[in-house]
Amino acid sequence: MIRIGIVGTGYGAREMMRLAAAHPSIELVAVASTSAAGKRLEDVLPAFRKVHDLTIETFDAKALAKKCDAVIVGVPSGQSITIVSALRAAGVRVLDLGGDFRLKDPALFEKYYKEKHGATDLLAEAVYGLPPVYRDTLKSAKLVCVPGCYPISAILPLNPILDQAKAAVPIVIDSISGISGAGRSPSEGYHFPEMNENLKAYKLAVHQHIPEIEQETGNRAMVQFTPHVAPLTRGILTTITFRAEGEVDPASAYARYDAEPFVRVLPQGSLPEVKHVRGTNFCDIGWAKDARTGNLVIVSTIDNLMGGTSGMAIQCINVMFGFDEREGLKFGGIAP
Amino acid sequence: MIRIGIVGTGYGAREMMRLAAAHPSIELVAVASTSAAGKRLEDVLPAFRKVHDLTIETFDAKALAKKCDAVIVGVPSGQSITIVSALRAAGVRVLDLGGDFRLKDPALFEKYYKEKHGATDLLAEAVYGLPPVYRDTLKSAKLVCVPGCYPISAILPLNPILDQAKAAVPIVIDSISGISGAGRSPSEGYHFPEMNENLKAYKLAVHQHIPEIEQETGNRAMVQFTPHVAPLTRGILTTITFRAEGEVDPASAYARYDAEPFVRVLPQGSLPEVKHVRGTNFCDIGWAKDARTGNLVIVSTIDNLMGGTSGMAIQCINVMFGFDEREGLKFGGIAP
Amino acid sequence: MIRIGIVGTGYGAREMMRLAAAHPSIELVAVASTSAAGKRLEDVLPAFRKVHDLTIETFDAKALAKKCDAVIVGVPSGQSITIVSALRAAGVRVLDLGGDFRLKDPALFEKYYKEKHGATDLLAEAVYGLPPVYRDTLKSAKLVCVPGCYPISAILPLNPILDQAKAAVPIVIDSISGISGAGRSPSEGYHFPEMNENLKAYKLAVHQHIPEIEQETGNRAMVQFTPHVAPLTRGILTTITFRAEGEVDPASAYARYDAEPFVRVLPQGSLPEVKHVRGTNFCDIGWAKDARTGNLVIVSTIDNLMGGTSGMAIQCINVMFGFDEREGLKFGGIAP
Amino acid sequence: MIRIGIVGTGYGAREMMRLAAAHPSIELVAVASTSAAGKRLEDVLPAFRKVHDLTIETFDAKALAKKCDAVIVGVPSGQSITIVSALRAAGVRVLDLGGDFRLKDPALFEKYYKEKHGATDLLAEAVYGLPPVYRDTLKSAKLVCVPGCYPISAILPLNPILDQAKAAVPIVIDSISGISGAGRSPSEGYHFPEMNENLKAYKLAVHQHIPEIEQETGNRAMVQFTPHVAPLTRGILTTITFRAEGEVDPASAYARYDAEPFVRVLPQGSLPEVKHVRGTNFCDIGWAKDARTGNLVIVSTIDNLMGGTSGMAIQCINVMFGFDEREGLKFGGIAP
Repeated sequence: MIRIGIVGTGYGAREMMRLAAAHPSIELVAVASTSAAGKRLEDVLPAFRKVHDLTIETFDAKALAKKCDAVIVGVPSGQSITIVSALRAAGVRVLDLGGDFRLKDPALFEKYYKEKHGATDLLAEAVYGLPPVYRDTLKSAKLVCVPGCYPISAILPLNPILDQAKAAVPIVIDSISGISGAGRSPSEGYHFPEMNENLKAYKLAVHQHIPEIEQETGNRAMVQFTPHVAPLTRGILTTITFRAEGEVDPASAYARYDAEPFVRVLPQGSLPEVKHVRGTNFCDIGWAKDARTGNLVIVSTIDNLMGGTSGMAIQCINVMFGFDEREGLKFGGIAP
Repeated sequence: MIRIGIVGTGYGAREMMRLAAAHPSIELVAVASTSAAGKRLEDVLPAFRKVHDLTIETFDAKALAKKCDAVIVGVPSGQSITIVSALRAAGVRVLDLGGDFRLKDPALFEKYYKEKHGATDLLAEAVYGLPPVYRDTLKSAKLVCVPGCYPISAILPLNPILDQAKAAVPIVIDSISGISGAGRSPSEGYHFPEMNENLKAYKLAVHQHIPEIEQETGNRAMVQFTPHVAPLTRGILTTITFRAEGEVDPASAYARYDAEPFVRVLPQGSLPEVKHVRGTNFCDIGWAKDARTGNLVIVSTIDNLMGGTSGMAIQCINVMFGFDEREGLKFGGIAP
Repeated sequence: MIRIGIVGTGYGAREMMRLAAAHPSIELVAVASTSAAGKRLEDVLPAFRKVHDLTIETFDAKALAKKCDAVIVGVPSGQSITIVSALRAAGVRVLDLGGDFRLKDPALFEKYYKEKHGATDLLAEAVYGLPPVYRDTLKSAKLVCVPGCYPISAILPLNPILDQAKAAVPIVIDSISGISGAGRSPSEGYHFPEMNENLKAYKLAVHQHIPEIEQETGNRAMVQFTPHVAPLTRGILTTITFRAEGEVDPASAYARYDAEPFVRVLPQGSLPEVKHVRGTNFCDIGWAKDARTGNLVIVSTIDNLMGGTSGMAIQCINVMFGFDEREGLKFGGIAP
Repeated sequence: MIRIGIVGTGYGAREMMRLAAAHPSIELVAVASTSAAGKRLEDVLPAFRKVHDLTIETFDAKALAKKCDAVIVGVPSGQSITIVSALRAAGVRVLDLGGDFRLKDPALFEKYYKEKHGATDLLAEAVYGLPPVYRDTLKSAKLVCVPGCYPISAILPLNPILDQAKAAVPIVIDSISGISGAGRSPSEGYHFPEMNENLKAYKLAVHQHIPEIEQETGNRAMVQFTPHVAPLTRGILTTITFRAEGEVDPASAYARYDAEPFVRVLPQGSLPEVKHVRGTNFCDIGWAKDARTGNLVIVSTIDNLMGGTSGMAIQCINVMFGFDEREGLKFGGIAP
């Protein structure tokens, strides 16, 4: 049994609270939030009435470090650098759900996040929280940067293929996301009557997940990443189109995932759907080769808040603290 | 640890499979279905790939009774009478998710379900699976009829009030349900483009849940029940309008629910929303008194597939087998 | 051909712009808005690129009166009193989409709108813009208050019935609305991930449409009105439950609507659905009598932005200016 | 004023009925359907009660030819060959909403539609109904094949660019469609609880719109087309990713659309959204050049049932019969 604290009350933080309640070896002992400090958690988030018996605290790194075995930071990108630094200085293990510690190169951070990185000294100890790739390093990690939702859906399907053959041209990655990915702050664009029955693309060629995907696929290819939003709450579907130099054999490339608890490669001819991963930590992968064009088309799906953020954080915690990796994550998709 | 079997692959059955995977003391050992027998479960329901390692069986009551401590029957209403009878004859404890054993009066069954009841001898041993009311009887129950989704949302808020004062006129109950309540069979009315952006009422004055609500509120009032559907997948919101003969005090009436693990009465001035109960076993209740009209208006919410069906079945199993009642159900609402 | 101006850029105003474009005898010559003055209409509302060639103006009553035959005011309730007063002083005919001029009794306005009415002198000349009831008066009206969306869905089905028999008890009216009814301002409650897959009731016993419904049904009955919201953009479904003193015969009561261009009473046994009125000016009505309880249950549907606001305004304009009442409104439901 | 007949009651046919009602120069005089013959139109499609006063007829080519100036055929692909042949033999002008006459090469038809083409003699007279490209030919066309929804969203943005420079590699086209594109027949995959909150890709590398796009972009590039579905009813968003050999300048390339009534090229920096074209005949186009990858990314949107089918058919009729091209189509987007 370990004790955890959560900083923030946004969507990633809420999903951590939900998953913590269901995890047999995790006890949620503190929630800290500047805006809601002093309030009962259930008054801010009625979904947790009779689930968590907590009063929200002001953020205090030392106090959290004292009572927690790990602290999860779920605040908007850009705001976690100070918070994570303070928590690390206080000696507690930290998992950051945001993007502030994912890019190893501070110049790329500055280019894509439009600000200077304020804690470059911590970048070296930050471990990218993707267990299929960094399982061993995660065991002793002090600071884990949980991967971005879009990158997870691209890195897991791409790496085994790029190990077989390199890309002939920039890889085209078109992702469609549910709206929870935009966070909990209301805005005109995501006001229900504006986004319902709507589709749009955004941040063409400038999205901050571009360098993260390129870094974690080993800088083996440029990616042309276009994110889209569709009127659903949870889920990402990513379509990757790609012509390899030389032959690729996805079936053999993906054999490495047979033993992965949360990666499911579908039988040939099957394609993944968001509903099969909703409410789970799974990444589902399907593909087709097009003999006519010479392209490989790969489709992957995740639940952006679980497999894309907080479920992945739980899996990292399981690795970090020696629990069974599936502990607290034994869910089939919520379908319907 | 107990072993359970599930008959059926409809929405109630699927939700049982999902919840069984997450329950620390339940092992799902069999799924039986006539239409899908012989197929791998994951090929029929891809959401369960790497979750349940099972091949779907032909229904065989004796075989199931032999390897299971309890069998859950999740087939369309009308079809479970034979199946439940066979399972009971084979000696195994049964939970029926459908409506075939809920009405104590076979004449009412015939009137509302439009067929003769084929196993009236079993009606006496059938326990209505609503733990806040039948907790003690459930402990040794051999046959549990899990309550209907609409009735749960009406009975739990109504009974404490009717204990204080009787209704002056028929109680008006208007419920709004998500579409999963209509089951998994495709039909024109629930084809996505027909039901999205749509609202409708149905079965005015003839819905089979009318006698179930009246029976389980002690036949203390007639109910005018009008069900509606709205374009969401999961959730029921029920609005109950009601003028009492004499004074009612909801706050004191509902004090009995303070210790209930899955009934949450909201502070005065707060109203429940479906999102706070989605993915949970909770029934949330709020209310307002209208001094001008003399009416009491009560609003309740449940997740029709969890608190309205399969979560309630898990809670019953917890009572029947002596587990902590919250085991396997420690979820806050999936919000978002 | 008449020239109209529109004040505001909220949802009611936008729908007027859309309908004006399709009306053969209406030319939209001005849009005025404080917040957007000076901008091209198509830059604020891209839906109107290549539809309306206009620059948004600062509100100037005299200028509008000079170039318009009628001005439609579509601003939030409470803000139109000043605007309408100025326009009427400038001599132009006005249609107000908001609630400021609908209640004849200023005391009720103050009670439900929580402010003193600042132009009570105009209340006498304000004609309630419901052609089936006020057709003759509308012909020469100078100030039209377009009815509220919920009231339309209640008044049209109720009046013919109340002409036959009075209500034995307060009439229970439960309405379900799409989210566009909440207006265009983003808020946490109507942020897409918060409202999608959600249902809630609100403003129990205090909604400002209560006195409007009671006034326009001739104060013949108290109403217990509970509004709900569901995850769709457009549409209202209203369920009215009601026990009459004496016999009622809906079929004969509703015969008066045979010749109404935009009221459709369904054949007995049919119930209305929102999809059949979406994108139209129709109000559809169905009903059932419950012999067991003695109640009459009526269900009605409208598109809250068309039949509930702007389509109704167009119909009023057609009456006011002597056009065919169906002009510019010849739409069947957008289904799908 | 012309008289039209419609064959079929599917989604394309229904949208034609809706648009015909609003068109000042079109009278709908007949609806023919095998399955619904003899029924009142309003009983089959309640959206048209008090809109069209028609009884559905059995299909009779000669009778239709006699009373109609044009007949629109809206039946599932594969079924229109016989119907169109009979209508043409009877001498009436025909617009086919399906795909049976779009491919000039019968071998491609057989490959992608999986059947032999039964009326190859008619292929020569079939004019592809895309007014910006075939306006002059359409004026005297006897048989118009209305373009496919996906192709319209790709051909309009691609052609001006391909006139400037050819593609270096296959063009990647990822489209997202609303579910009405799948037609009116209920199926498990599009049952509301299965498709709501879901995303999926389908028909990778084999979709029948691939050869249509290649044909109508002049066979200047292979396309890698991947269609996706998202939980909305209407709308297509298409993202086209493309590296040109040599320089392209979209702003100048698209200048040809300035005078097009239904193509809207957005100012640089703006991207189209489905909501701005919903309920309209517009195709909106935006783009970005990525200096880093050398790619051009174009995004386009249409309403698949209007700009993608029936609105386009109305525009063709306007051209064919000499009406103003915008007649009956003067709608801004239904937003919200």
